[in-house]
Amino acid sequence: MKIVIYPGSFDPIHNGHLDVIERAAKLCDKMIVAVAKNPGKTGLFSTGERLGLIEEVTSHIKGREITTFDGLLVDFFRETGAEAVVRGLRAVSDFEYEFQMALMNRNLLDDLETIFLVPSQENIYLSSRIIKEVARFGGDIDGFVPPIVGKALREKFS
Amino acid sequence: MKIVIYPGSFDPIHNGHLDVIERAAKLCDKMIVAVAKNPGKTGLFSTGERLGLIEEVTSHIKGREITTFDGLLVDFFRETGAEAVVRGLRAVSDFEYEFQMALMNRNLLDDLETIFLVPSQENIYLSSRIIKEVARFGGDIDGFVPPIVGKALREKFS
Amino acid sequence: MKIVIYPGSFDPIHNGHLDVIERAAKLCDKMIVAVAKNPGKTGLFSTGERLGLIEEVTSHIKGREITTFDGLLVDFFRETGAEAVVRGLRAVSDFEYEFQMALMNRNLLDDLETIFLVPSQENIYLSSRIIKEVARFGGDIDGFVPPIVGKALREKFS
Amino acid sequence: MKIVIYPGSFDPIHNGHLDVIERAAKLCDKMIVAVAKNPGKTGLFSTGERLGLIEEVTSHIKGREITTFDGLLVDFFRETGAEAVVRGLRAVSDFEYEFQMALMNRNLLDDLETIFLVPSQENIYLSSRIIKEVARFGGDIDGFVPPIVGKALREKFS
Amino acid sequence: MKIVIYPGSFDPIHNGHLDVIERAAKLCDKMIVAVAKNPGKTGLFSTGERLGLIEEVTSHIKGREITTFDGLLVDFFRETGAEAVVRGLRAVSDFEYEFQMALMNRNLLDDLETIFLVPSQENIYLSSRIIKEVARFGGDIDGFVPPIVGKALREKFS
Amino acid sequence: MKIVIYPGSFDPIHNGHLDVIERAAKLCDKMIVAVAKNPGKTGLFSTGERLGLIEEVTSHIKGREITTFDGLLVDFFRETGAEAVVRGLRAVSDFEYEFQMALMNRNLLDDLETIFLVPSQENIYLSSRIIKEVARFGGDIDGFVPPIVGKALREKFS
Repeated sequence: MKIVIYPGSFDPIHNGHLDVIERAAKLCDKMIVAVAKNPGKTGLFSTGERLGLIEEVTSHIKGREITTFDGLLVDFFRETGAEAVVRGLRAVSDFEYEFQMALMNRNLLDDLETIFLVPSQENIYLSSRIIKEVARFGGDIDGFVPPIVGKALREKFS
Repeated sequence: MKIVIYPGSFDPIHNGHLDVIERAAKLCDKMIVAVAKNPGKTGLFSTGERLGLIEEVTSHIKGREITTFDGLLVDFFRETGAEAVVRGLRAVSDFEYEFQMALMNRNLLDDLETIFLVPSQENIYLSSRIIKEVARFGGDIDGFVPPIVGKALREKFS
Repeated sequence: MKIVIYPGSFDPIHNGHLDVIERAAKLCDKMIVAVAKNPGKTGLFSTGERLGLIEEVTSHIKGREITTFDGLLVDFFRETGAEAVVRGLRAVSDFEYEFQMALMNRNLLDDLETIFLVPSQENIYLSSRIIKEVARFGGDIDGFVPPIVGKALREKFS
Repeated sequence: MKIVIYPGSFDPIHNGHLDVIERAAKLCDKMIVAVAKNPGKTGLFSTGERLGLIEEVTSHIKGREITTFDGLLVDFFRETGAEAVVRGLRAVSDFEYEFQMALMNRNLLDDLETIFLVPSQENIYLSSRIIKEVARFGGDIDGFVPPIVGKALREKFS
Repeated sequence: MKIVIYPGSFDPIHNGHLDVIERAAKLCDKMIVAVAKNPGKTGLFSTGERLGLIEEVTSHIKGREITTFDGLLVDFFRETGAEAVVRGLRAVSDFEYEFQMALMNRNLLDDLETIFLVPSQENIYLSSRIIKEVARFGGDIDGFVPPIVGKALREKFS
Repeated sequence: MKIVIYPGSFDPIHNGHLDVIERAAKLCDKMIVAVAKNPGKTGLFSTGERLGLIEEVTSHIKGREITTFDGLLVDFFRETGAEAVVRGLRAVSDFEYEFQMALMNRNLLDDLETIFLVPSQENIYLSSRIIKEVARFGGDIDGFVPPIVGKALREKFS
């Protein structure tokens, strides 16, 4: 594959995301990490902060690009000339939703192929939501996020 | 991706398989359809018959190769120099099993990446087992398999 | 069956709903499409707009009635003299919730039987929520809703 | 609904089946309990014994008919002039399989509508397989099957 | 087991909770029912009211203690010297979330063991959310909660 | 808890089982590992071999007992005076079956409480069946079973 898009909200990026990025990057020439801008939803980190964190923790990955998109993924997909969208799968509930999105996106654009990767076992249950919950109460999140993200989370909640 | 393996028993190949092969072939240079030889299990079709049917119904797909393997998928994977194994996902029960196999295979060979594709909606519930059940009782299977496979099934059960 | 109720929020009605209505209507004499009024939740469309859209897209269905209800489904069920409630099933997550509601409703009223129908394959992943998301960003929703609903969605988001 | 078919292997009929039969019978004029003859599978009870047990435990249900069928359900469905097939749903794994069968049957015959009912809570986990396992080891199965079926099971395993 | 914690929001306690408490209390010397204080979420009942209701309906259970905690469960767990956390399992969607939390908690504290119990069949589908929905519309909730909780719910919604 | 039973076929014992045994042993005084003798099913290892392997790999666990049982678990449970049965949970499909068994066993004996533990993440996908499949083809199973079990598996398949 030449170009692959990894879309998400990345609020913030964690080890499960990073794992998918590293795996997917090996399978393509260019890997676009695309932060979805959702006007109706304010996250913990601003879009700029999210991009900055992704930038730093993925700097070792060859051929990765980081950007934002708003609107529909299919429109962004078309513009980039990507061949596939990549998503990580964690558990059954994930699968249901991802399956639905993959079918919907294919209906909107027949060429949009979604490929799913399984993250490493130690990352199988991670989610940004649960990590933020732990960080909010001062829990130790060092095993779940890169150090710089851990630092950013601690600052947000201090 | 340069080389991708699509392993399975293909007893026989049906539209859901074909769908995955066509989708995966677009994402790589060489697509190896690999029929698993299982000494302990006799199928409806012999390995030779399965290969023949796959050969015919995939002749329009550029860069596809058809072969058999026995033993472990990881050993076959290593020999071929493939970058990834591709599997189609249909439903939750599928996902559970596929997830387990993907984790096991990665444990056996760290480089074995499994990527999952979602088949077209009209193929989402197909399985060789259910198609054979319908064919056994003379049901109309023309919507589920390529014509030559339908003919082969009818001959088996006549 | 004489009378069957199809309750929902229908915000707005889509092809998956319509599919269930058409299938259920064949199995009963009177089919009541009942829009649940939820005082605590404002939808995209007002109750009046929802009723109007359902009215127009189901005008070809013999024996259908359209109404609203507030409060508990069991109370509404009792008043109408219905024999069963019908619901469409899409996927596992759906099933869990629907199963829970069916058991709860039966506990509240022993005679309230819930029957589940499977929508057509092309409608299996549809939901009002996902359609509204696509419409919000100007995506093409013509394959998912009747034309008049598509028009109404475009007007809401223009 | 005028005619509804409840197909199954009923080896033997248990309280969960009986529950579905009673619920479905209220929703139609004629309820056909249809024992599938599967030439490749020998059950604990012969087809004749199964029919006899069903006959006895459903004698209180108005408008029920008991019969066997072999071959495809769709062919039997067509012959009977039924409007729907009814199935009980117990749990997620059930649902997956039932969903697949419902879609396959509809593909084979567009008019074959499958409707699902939820059994009573006390029957939600029952299956003929698990009941036979318990009976085989002399466990008390009186809460799971009608008395006459319990007697028949004890005789089989004595 | 000496000390076991049963954490939850208990807004309000219902028969499914009570069932888990009774079952778990038999397996340990001290059973701590711990109401999680969630500063960001206002419930129907205040923390004080919740404690009061739990107090009354569990007064027959030997060795039970009732308290609140805020912050992370792992921190509370450490302070109490408990050996395990107990949780009730109802359905698949439950299981997914509970599984994720159990793995996360173990990652935060290796000694935190989560044990799961299955509630009685009649309580399998109960949740505080669904009970509150029914009570809000004047539905009969007497089969789902202890009498004193039913009274409290009716007062809240009168 | 005083006495807990961990029933299974253990054909052979693997790291996932061992993990559950170690976790459960901390929560009780006596931990009975009980190998189910199933007259109708021949395993890879004889009952004697299974007991021997369990014996060796659990010798470090205080208060563990190893035995066999035939017939129903409830009968064995009654004889031992155990307070609970422990089972490991791996994935959703597991959960369905385990849930069904837990409810059935409680119906057979009201006092039979089943408690579920979550194995360590590295053992989450392990099963005896999949390990035997890998071993049969000469795959490296050292990460999945204790060394002595690995040796026994290699001998069986050499």
